[in-house]
Amino acid sequence: MSEHAATSSALPRGIPDDRPPAGGGDQDDSTAGSAPVAFRLSELREWGIAAYAAAGMSTPDAATVVDNQLWSDRRGVDTHGFQRISWYVEWFRDGTTDPKAQCEVVSRTPSVLVADGHHGLGQLVITRFMEQLIDAASASGLVAGVIRNSNDWGCGANYPYRAAEAGFVCYGTTTSVPNLAPFGSRRKLFGNNPIVWTFPRRGRPPIVLDMAVTPVALGKVLRARSEGTDIPAEWGFLDRDGNPTVDPDAAMRGIVPAIGGYKGIGMVTASNIVAGILAGSAHTGDVAVGRRGQFFLLMDPGVFGDRERYYDDIEDMVAQVRAAGEHDALPGQTVYLPGELEQLEMDRRSAAGTVSYPPSVVRSLRRVGDDLGVAFECAPVPGQSNRGGSS
Amino acid sequence: MSEHAATSSALPRGIPDDRPPAGGGDQDDSTAGSAPVAFRLSELREWGIAAYAAAGMSTPDAATVVDNQLWSDRRGVDTHGFQRISWYVEWFRDGTTDPKAQCEVVSRTPSVLVADGHHGLGQLVITRFMEQLIDAASASGLVAGVIRNSNDWGCGANYPYRAAEAGFVCYGTTTSVPNLAPFGSRRKLFGNNPIVWTFPRRGRPPIVLDMAVTPVALGKVLRARSEGTDIPAEWGFLDRDGNPTVDPDAAMRGIVPAIGGYKGIGMVTASNIVAGILAGSAHTGDVAVGRRGQFFLLMDPGVFGDRERYYDDIEDMVAQVRAAGEHDALPGQTVYLPGELEQLEMDRRSAAGTVSYPPSVVRSLRRVGDDLGVAFECAPVPGQSNRGGSS
Repeated sequence: MSEHAATSSALPRGIPDDRPPAGGGDQDDSTAGSAPVAFRLSELREWGIAAYAAAGMSTPDAATVVDNQLWSDRRGVDTHGFQRISWYVEWFRDGTTDPKAQCEVVSRTPSVLVADGHHGLGQLVITRFMEQLIDAASASGLVAGVIRNSNDWGCGANYPYRAAEAGFVCYGTTTSVPNLAPFGSRRKLFGNNPIVWTFPRRGRPPIVLDMAVTPVALGKVLRARSEGTDIPAEWGFLDRDGNPTVDPDAAMRGIVPAIGGYKGIGMVTASNIVAGILAGSAHTGDVAVGRRGQFFLLMDPGVFGDRERYYDDIEDMVAQVRAAGEHDALPGQTVYLPGELEQLEMDRRSAAGTVSYPPSVVRSLRRVGDDLGVAFECAPVPGQSNRGGSS
Repeated sequence: MSEHAATSSALPRGIPDDRPPAGGGDQDDSTAGSAPVAFRLSELREWGIAAYAAAGMSTPDAATVVDNQLWSDRRGVDTHGFQRISWYVEWFRDGTTDPKAQCEVVSRTPSVLVADGHHGLGQLVITRFMEQLIDAASASGLVAGVIRNSNDWGCGANYPYRAAEAGFVCYGTTTSVPNLAPFGSRRKLFGNNPIVWTFPRRGRPPIVLDMAVTPVALGKVLRARSEGTDIPAEWGFLDRDGNPTVDPDAAMRGIVPAIGGYKGIGMVTASNIVAGILAGSAHTGDVAVGRRGQFFLLMDPGVFGDRERYYDDIEDMVAQVRAAGEHDALPGQTVYLPGELEQLEMDRRSAAGTVSYPPSVVRSLRRVGDDLGVAFECAPVPGQSNRGGSS
């Protein structure tokens, strides 16, 4: 049991304090305001690969990680993409993450794969693991897989999305650094462990549910903290004594609420067990950078019945949801399938060939580039900036 | 696609309006007040089996159903136990449910079972299916199973709890009659589909997460409706125009909130696909009595690694949660594992040998007994009544 976790009131381990330097910092044209700045995907990709290579990764591995992160940025989940390069470079430096480590499958049956990520970067070892899971599911129709000694998975939708593109219904979940307390306690023992479900459609992008259990993305609280503003009382944060608070710093050190209260806490408990304990990885208060775990389940609809009937039924469900949006929407509301807003954003950004970042992220990319000797010289693209998406 | 569901603003199909008769109704001693009335489990069991037999079930099948329902009542989830006998007898009468139908496994591999419930009673066909799933998982270590043309599963924890007692981590979910709308719409297309996770412990009852996605049990809204009282605005119900309401009737016909808003709606969408579409059962607006589906996943921790290490880690997690409750509880709070309160209630009621029901349930049991010619003559046990549990 981790005594460290048991008594800590600090921010989650492994999350650097990315607040802008007091008194200003750099003031060049592109990051002086608060508007997002757009860059070409092709230039970002080239720079990103060079940066990870300079940090110790092989070039093919760096390309895998960069493509995963830019997928997240294209999807509008840009809190989980290139924004985290600065984290990962720090993890390489402090030794919690190994830039050379590879995914190793340590045991295998037709329906179960167990892997060790050897403390590598999540975007690398989990991508490689998912490739093996897809191969295995293609042979057997149904596979459960766990990976231990893994890492932050970034935008978790990425891996089950690949499984769905290959025709599989997929469920995935991960452990993450302790941030939530058992219901009724202030002691942070569980991550805000997301769950992901993906469902293939016929000739269209999959349906994607990718959700963590906090009602409000923690990034919004961290942003308020860095900007010195209050958070709305309705967000439901409590300080360490269990009293409602609008102070974002007290909120992050206090009681982070979960959807449904004990229900959301129950959900992260379940993810802690399947992605942590079943995976043979660290669990509960011991989850840390380089010691996270993931659980995946891949299912070919054809093992349960006629595959074409599955696709017909999915389209019938979609038609019912569309009709509910067209004929029975609430005033001012638009109805979307799970993950559809993110897919639309991905389509837009991919077509434009650009993604955009808030000034704080641009600053962190410049800092990382300077540190690694790979200057961030991607050119801002005027008139292309799009607002950051949800997370 | 169901046009019926698409335009209905009524209560969910298959849920009888159990409001007490206007002007009073029966006024005998045991149900005149509002206090719960206790009965001996042994007497309830005997009466229940006779009642179901009179309604057309075989005696062994009736015993399976009654034991399932009294398990729910012992667990404190007494909204999902004997209270529903009156529903089921009505379903037998209207032909939506067949009292003789059995679970048939229609296809089978070492890791996948597909069953048809033939419109039988859920507590019967799902119990029989779970017995087969446990057998299959005992051989292969990992099994996914779906059942179509099934029914209300009552207290859903029951089936995965059995799997956990046999040593398996188990996930289960079900479709249910449409009650929730796609996020942003008023058209009810999805059930308040619960999910269940169970995790075996060494020598102790399993950890049980059994949750639906409404923040407040709908039974509480129905109770306020039958009592003519308002519901708190904080419960988050909207009328059909999307405006907040405290009128329980407008609430049930309007927008039923889900935990996390679009997140909870995403969860019931996922359950709709795996328990409805993958199962080859009715889905979305077509889910109805006798046409529900369930999905289960059973996993032997031993297929992922050392089984004893799993049990060690579970106990370590439990110890961390206990410590968080002992040393870091919020003022006035007690920390429980998921499902622990229900387990404690089950232990208490089992030891007492009694369960208790509110007067409305006692009235419905009498009515059913009179209808079936099997008078409900179980004797109230003075001084034993316990409050109904959560659902």
